[in-house]
Amino acid sequence: MAMNENFADFLIREIDSKENPSVAGLDPSLSSLPQEILEKYRLSSGTVSFKAAAEAVLEFNKNLIDCLYDTVPAVKLQSAYYEQLGPDGISALLESARYAKSKGLIVIGDVKRNDIGSTCGAYSSAYLGRVDLLGVKTPLFDFDAITVNSYLGYEGIEPFLKDCSLYGKGIFSLVKTSNKGSLEFQGVMTDNGPNYSVMGHLVSEWGKSLTGSSGYSSAGAVVGATFPHEAKLLREEMKNSFFLVPGYGAQGGGAEGVVSCFNPDGCGAIINSSRAIMYAYMKENDSRNYKKHARDEALRMKKEITDELQKKGICRW
Amino acid sequence: MAMNENFADFLIREIDSKENPSVAGLDPSLSSLPQEILEKYRLSSGTVSFKAAAEAVLEFNKNLIDCLYDTVPAVKLQSAYYEQLGPDGISALLESARYAKSKGLIVIGDVKRNDIGSTCGAYSSAYLGRVDLLGVKTPLFDFDAITVNSYLGYEGIEPFLKDCSLYGKGIFSLVKTSNKGSLEFQGVMTDNGPNYSVMGHLVSEWGKSLTGSSGYSSAGAVVGATFPHEAKLLREEMKNSFFLVPGYGAQGGGAEGVVSCFNPDGCGAIINSSRAIMYAYMKENDSRNYKKHARDEALRMKKEITDELQKKGICRW
Repeated sequence: MAMNENFADFLIREIDSKENPSVAGLDPSLSSLPQEILEKYRLSSGTVSFKAAAEAVLEFNKNLIDCLYDTVPAVKLQSAYYEQLGPDGISALLESARYAKSKGLIVIGDVKRNDIGSTCGAYSSAYLGRVDLLGVKTPLFDFDAITVNSYLGYEGIEPFLKDCSLYGKGIFSLVKTSNKGSLEFQGVMTDNGPNYSVMGHLVSEWGKSLTGSSGYSSAGAVVGATFPHEAKLLREEMKNSFFLVPGYGAQGGGAEGVVSCFNPDGCGAIINSSRAIMYAYMKENDSRNYKKHARDEALRMKKEITDELQKKGICRW
Repeated sequence: MAMNENFADFLIREIDSKENPSVAGLDPSLSSLPQEILEKYRLSSGTVSFKAAAEAVLEFNKNLIDCLYDTVPAVKLQSAYYEQLGPDGISALLESARYAKSKGLIVIGDVKRNDIGSTCGAYSSAYLGRVDLLGVKTPLFDFDAITVNSYLGYEGIEPFLKDCSLYGKGIFSLVKTSNKGSLEFQGVMTDNGPNYSVMGHLVSEWGKSLTGSSGYSSAGAVVGATFPHEAKLLREEMKNSFFLVPGYGAQGGGAEGVVSCFNPDGCGAIINSSRAIMYAYMKENDSRNYKKHARDEALRMKKEITDELQKKGICRW
């Protein structure tokens, strides 16, 4: 990717090249690692250090990346699973991101960071931009995009937008999340529609300066697959925003919710699945072949989404 | 602190014992470290590794803690400044937290985390609870409290509340933040008042199960010192919520905003100051005596807040 290529353009190019608008989530939970990995790192109850756990997680990720990189355009790393392993976990996060990038994958850091001023700037430097080591600008995580939470308003977004512009990066702001109770706050009615709609409007406005040649902005939105009605509404209100869509698969979001997140051009959404891909082996009760099952599930998901887009007459391939 | 003492009770006890309702923020930015520290770690442009930077930051923190621990009841570690130094930065965060705790300080992790389900559980395990290493529950950051962002609703808070109850911990949810543009979203009018008020109501409700013998809940709120009118309103609406108050000092929040955050019992708020304390030496242009200037500023702040509480006739000491 050229240094300053717009992130939305880059994302669309990779989705089109793999004919697959989906992203594989890498949210490795120690207790769900395949037996083979646990044995290799001699992990059993009472013997696990944070370091050994982080090494096992990194190997699991690399193996999954190896069997997914030619099929999916992007991976999403959920920071919580790495943070819970301390400094070693952060090393595994860094290494996983680098490995995925070396395989040509777009890497999204699911960090949902939020703060203001210089603190927000520090987050942005760490995850998207460059860290200032006494004048020497040094990349650290160098994610292609991250998730953010915009409850604080524009001042909580501005440093991210700057780095998006400088380094060709992207952000996805929480607008309408996938959890059942998300309407508790996001659905509260205001003078300008429900809160998710108010947030969606702000996100669209903030993103205008980052519009690529595709017409889409690099400042997109998180919109869950579990609420088709709300997704449809937001899709109409936020025509130029790219949606990162959680809730497919393990969280129960069906094809209808997923398809509601696409524009009539068959573009504008990338669908995430984490556990359903990573732990596909559990459904088959076949830990030994976890790579094959992960790949099969990623291909099944690709087909399911493509079929739905075709049914609606908006498939681009 | 007894394993299961309620966090709000613990916080009030420490505030009363030091007669000081303030918290010192440790948000170490490399470019602002005193000359003495930069020299000791031989940090100059072009020579700085993340590891050396993190070591310098840890020493700076320890020195500040040494000169503040008998005066302030708590420190707040802003995670962004550590995250931007990678795995070494996370080690410095861990070590800073442990050192502060060893000096009897309450340690608040300013992480503003937010997610749902098992991901939220992973954050909570890392920062408040215990990490499950294949059946062995292991403390990691073990903060006394953290900041969280509740845009996702109750499902984004429940795992934190559980660990608060299990381990005597606390959370502070963003309600009304200190940034100038915070009303852009937080001030949007709903059928039940402005958004910050809606969020405040939810936070109060969620916190009820964590009420201590003091009458205050361990699930508190972040309410900025920079908006006295809004602070006063929230104070009336959230009588049993403890407020963590940013915006004092460097961000321009004055005594009026600060005092608005206290209840008539002279309790219910803890005021944060970060840069004004850490970098007090800059105002004096006296890098060599940065410890003395930090302590002087912490004492000045204590006196200023106490004076204001006395003027209002609600000082507890």
